[in-house]
Amino acid sequence: MEIRIAEAVAADVPLILELIRGLADYEKLSDQVTATEEKLRATLFGPRPGADVLLAYVGEVCAGFALFFPNYSTFLAKPGIFLEDLYVKPEWRGKGIGKALLVRVAAIARDRGCGRFEWEVLDWNEPSIGFYKSLGAVAMVEWTKYRVTGEALERLS
Amino acid sequence: MEIRIAEAVAADVPLILELIRGLADYEKLSDQVTATEEKLRATLFGPRPGADVLLAYVGEVCAGFALFFPNYSTFLAKPGIFLEDLYVKPEWRGKGIGKALLVRVAAIARDRGCGRFEWEVLDWNEPSIGFYKSLGAVAMVEWTKYRVTGEALERLS
Repeated sequence: MEIRIAEAVAADVPLILELIRGLADYEKLSDQVTATEEKLRATLFGPRPGADVLLAYVGEVCAGFALFFPNYSTFLAKPGIFLEDLYVKPEWRGKGIGKALLVRVAAIARDRGCGRFEWEVLDWNEPSIGFYKSLGAVAMVEWTKYRVTGEALERLS
Repeated sequence: MEIRIAEAVAADVPLILELIRGLADYEKLSDQVTATEEKLRATLFGPRPGADVLLAYVGEVCAGFALFFPNYSTFLAKPGIFLEDLYVKPEWRGKGIGKALLVRVAAIARDRGCGRFEWEVLDWNEPSIGFYKSLGAVAMVEWTKYRVTGEALERLS
């Protein structure tokens, strides 16, 4: 089975939204999705793209995607890559598609001289955790993310 | 006490490195710091700056800093801000300098139309955790970060 990975373009926005919704459904976070095609087009394919998107194809069928953006480590004084989303459609799992996407993003990180390649996973997502550990990823269990959003962000600002 | 917040420039690199080392020492992670003035100059003040740096001054004395970069939420289809470093020198703590830096970054997030403002904290850092919760920040305890670095990144790529 040949897996082809392609950079997404603006015409892929409906497909990207479908994949984001599939990921949110898998993560039981569908209620958090307020993305629309219009917003994705403006923020991913406008004058200041917020992230890069890779699509994984088997033949003509899109089986999954990866979305990532640069981060930065002060301790290393080097850029890194943060993988915001990695998703393979249910009917395409277990065929190496997720790994092919991860390997491609890791290669981009290497080519950019990045010191780190990072992502996050939900604690109950055991299949993904086992897969990530098998690739040499280390869990940063001593760190917790804090988020300010909505009205709390308005108040703080 | 008046706190003045200024955007860092290339001439501030020695000061920024000193602050990064101070933060690493506080976090008991000094062994991870391989940053040098040369690397910081190239990655923060070169053609593709990896992050923005704010310095907090009291009079002519630099008391702390914040370093941040954009991230992206697919669920919101909006940019966000990730605060990589927030540090106040020991002798300047408890005077509102950390909050002044956070408020400034939150204002930048608001002005950029960001949906989220996020950072991470070490689990044992109770003083910071209490401070962040008082500002309306929510702990994303169900998420764990995974990292691939060094030889594991080479292998994966």
